[in-house]
Amino acid sequence: MNNEELIAFAKGKGFFWPSAEMYGGAAGIYDYGHLGAMMKRRFEHVWLSYFVEGNSDYYLIDGSTILPERPLVASGHAARFNDILVGCSKCHTYYRADVLLGELGIKVSEGAGAKEIDGLVRDNKVRCPKDKGELLPSKAFNMMIDLSLGPEKSDKAYLRPETAQSAYLNFFREFNVLRKSLPMGLAVIGRAYRNEISPRQGLYRLRELIQAELQIFFDPESFPIDPSDIKGFKRQELSVIPYSTKKLETATVEKLVKDYGYPEFYVYHMALIDNFYKGVLGVPEGRIRFLEKGGDEKAFYNRLHMDIEIDIESWGGYREVAGLHYREDYDLNAHAKGSKTELAVTVGTRKVVPHVLELSFGVDRNMWMLIDTFYKVEGDRKILKLKPWIAPFNAAVLPLQKDEKIMLMVDNIRQELKGRFRVFLDDSGSIGRRYARMDEIGTPFCITVDFDSVDQKSPNFETVTVRERDSKSQERIKVGDIAAFLETNRTYS
Amino acid sequence: MNNEELIAFAKGKGFFWPSAEMYGGAAGIYDYGHLGAMMKRRFEHVWLSYFVEGNSDYYLIDGSTILPERPLVASGHAARFNDILVGCSKCHTYYRADVLLGELGIKVSEGAGAKEIDGLVRDNKVRCPKDKGELLPSKAFNMMIDLSLGPEKSDKAYLRPETAQSAYLNFFREFNVLRKSLPMGLAVIGRAYRNEISPRQGLYRLRELIQAELQIFFDPESFPIDPSDIKGFKRQELSVIPYSTKKLETATVEKLVKDYGYPEFYVYHMALIDNFYKGVLGVPEGRIRFLEKGGDEKAFYNRLHMDIEIDIESWGGYREVAGLHYREDYDLNAHAKGSKTELAVTVGTRKVVPHVLELSFGVDRNMWMLIDTFYKVEGDRKILKLKPWIAPFNAAVLPLQKDEKIMLMVDNIRQELKGRFRVFLDDSGSIGRRYARMDEIGTPFCITVDFDSVDQKSPNFETVTVRERDSKSQERIKVGDIAAFLETNRTYS
Repeated sequence: MNNEELIAFAKGKGFFWPSAEMYGGAAGIYDYGHLGAMMKRRFEHVWLSYFVEGNSDYYLIDGSTILPERPLVASGHAARFNDILVGCSKCHTYYRADVLLGELGIKVSEGAGAKEIDGLVRDNKVRCPKDKGELLPSKAFNMMIDLSLGPEKSDKAYLRPETAQSAYLNFFREFNVLRKSLPMGLAVIGRAYRNEISPRQGLYRLRELIQAELQIFFDPESFPIDPSDIKGFKRQELSVIPYSTKKLETATVEKLVKDYGYPEFYVYHMALIDNFYKGVLGVPEGRIRFLEKGGDEKAFYNRLHMDIEIDIESWGGYREVAGLHYREDYDLNAHAKGSKTELAVTVGTRKVVPHVLELSFGVDRNMWMLIDTFYKVEGDRKILKLKPWIAPFNAAVLPLQKDEKIMLMVDNIRQELKGRFRVFLDDSGSIGRRYARMDEIGTPFCITVDFDSVDQKSPNFETVTVRERDSKSQERIKVGDIAAFLETNRTYS
Repeated sequence: MNNEELIAFAKGKGFFWPSAEMYGGAAGIYDYGHLGAMMKRRFEHVWLSYFVEGNSDYYLIDGSTILPERPLVASGHAARFNDILVGCSKCHTYYRADVLLGELGIKVSEGAGAKEIDGLVRDNKVRCPKDKGELLPSKAFNMMIDLSLGPEKSDKAYLRPETAQSAYLNFFREFNVLRKSLPMGLAVIGRAYRNEISPRQGLYRLRELIQAELQIFFDPESFPIDPSDIKGFKRQELSVIPYSTKKLETATVEKLVKDYGYPEFYVYHMALIDNFYKGVLGVPEGRIRFLEKGGDEKAFYNRLHMDIEIDIESWGGYREVAGLHYREDYDLNAHAKGSKTELAVTVGTRKVVPHVLELSFGVDRNMWMLIDTFYKVEGDRKILKLKPWIAPFNAAVLPLQKDEKIMLMVDNIRQELKGRFRVFLDDSGSIGRRYARMDEIGTPFCITVDFDSVDQKSPNFETVTVRERDSKSQERIKVGDIAAFLETNRTYS
């Protein structure tokens, strides 16, 4: 699918569309319809289960989206979370300088200031793409969305620009409430906000976005990874573009540690993320890569920075869906200083300011990526081949006809599954049409109740037909076995 | 517990505390720590399962928290979502007029304007409670939090004041994507924002709050409730304070319909909510009541309005935790007009503008209520007697000692349960101390792995001890049966 086709699919089937669509929509702000909301819940559930719940030192927390001004001054966001904008002197359209210049093939460094941009604009004679108007001098534009609270609107605050800040701000309390030991991970799944200048391409660049982030606080002297965990990834090959060579290379964990000097814990987490995409979500081999950023491409407080990129047809190639950042102790030090709080924790006999390893996932981008990757047209079939643990519905229940006995069994099945599984009741149209409908929204199993199911004389009494989406294979199973059947098929292995 | 004790408990154990606490906190804005985040997830899961997932016509959606200006002008919030404030001429402290006067025992009607307030202030000689300063003339203050988007910050927008608007704005698309039939329910669980003037009492009045709301769109000519569903509540007695009598009365669904003329579908939903609190959450009989609001106490677009109130010790008595509102067709009409969209849907041969029944729950308030209601001191034991499906953890796994074989079994148990259950590993301190710790955070089951568990010669080989929180009763079960045991104990019946 191309970008427009995916947007049309998402709208038409009920996954997502621009917020306040009735009013013409809001730039860079989306609503998730029922299918999207269910799929998002399941993505988040799997993410949480895979990255957080399996580790007894990692914890989910939930922080506010509004933050007062002081922590965001301390974190540097108030001064430095800027984009450089260039505006047209004629039509007053504004562009992110790096995006505008990048699209013209002009290389801009990550931290480029107004001076560098103005030089590039001048040297390359760049003009407004809309009306060829001359560009105004560029300006730094803070991307945080600010607000004013209180009866006199005198308390300045911001919508958080990243969920990570909620983890940093709560580190000290959680450390003391919980185990008082490192490593400790704090995960936040929630919204973050950026006043993006040119939001576009559906869920790619949003003003209101959803992040799933895990901040792992660790002792910089040792971040021990269980050797058996590393062993599990021994044969896993990672595709990496190291900053030092800028060439795509496929290598094992061992080789990446040896040849490039990346810390073992860092490469282990690359393998963990690689396996999440390939093993858990089912992204095909050869479509995921790690792009290392270095020099002025990365934030100054990152010692190591990898973008996880996936080849996304509708976005025209490899795009960032997640990041793995070794952020050192920048954030904790900044908040310790800003809030005048003791910054170090005690590990054994030492005082330590933990370093941070950040696993950052854009939930919206991953939703888009999943639809892009798994939507298939096979002959006259359209199938959203999502893994059963990602699909919006666990299953559909289809009464062959609206017969009283059949509907009663359908009701009983739904009651039995309620609360544990999300099951769609589809009772209109031919069975073939209903199968097609369920294929297209990714429902992995269709459970059909027919006349045999409710006929005491039939050998198939109290059984149903389960049809698998991808293979179209059908089998009859006992009504009492449906829950167990779905259970084995909803948990990734 | 009183208010301060509950706040101290929530902080000390890791449930919730003011956001950006290191910086002195933010008024009316809270973070949930790990225990609070887990408990909140489970409350939301049960809410969703009970009110939404059991009904094949009800759907979860997820809408943006930022909304552009136009829909909120159309909905009336931009003009009318006001509080009347009075400020002190000396210290410039501002008060919500209704709260300040209410605390002085002066009755204020729900929609009271500046004129009425100024009259009451004058007649009662009200002064600033802080420094006895004279009060300034009152003013209407819009409680929405506004923001400015775009490169010139020229696009006005708001943080949504209620999640309900996301459902109204998406009604038309969802109706057409889904079954094209009424009733249809759209549920949203998410954040809403209000610039509350005097946020206080922990999670009672917040600037950033979490709502779980279900909007049921129905044909005003008939909202059929399955007779068997009504029958299920036949013996359920509801405590109601009707607006017409202002007297507490305990009556059945049947009697409330007959004696007060409330529509049957409305009383059915009262019973549904009543059962959610008593049956699912376990709130004791006699501590929940429905307070009908009428006249100028309720919004003009509500035909019927009941506050669901629970007796909450730390808040000094009955407080609103949820609402049941028959909102008629006000919102859909407003958005149809505001967006110039065809407003009616086709039901059979008629054009119908659906009416709305709103079930609105304040998630934060319910979290507070649950801790208040279920925290018990029994002798020297402190127990948070949350139902197993609400408690932050499904269970704790306790290795009797840090023995290699024992730890291996503990690991295997955790691996087995991972993804399906949230299990806390507690491996420090005596077993008694660990039991006490788990009691106080509500963990319903402690699973102890001891030397017998790993001793091939013991008759208890591959079994563990499961200790139930409230009764302290212990039983040995097979390791392979733990998952099934927890499964039967996590779903409300």
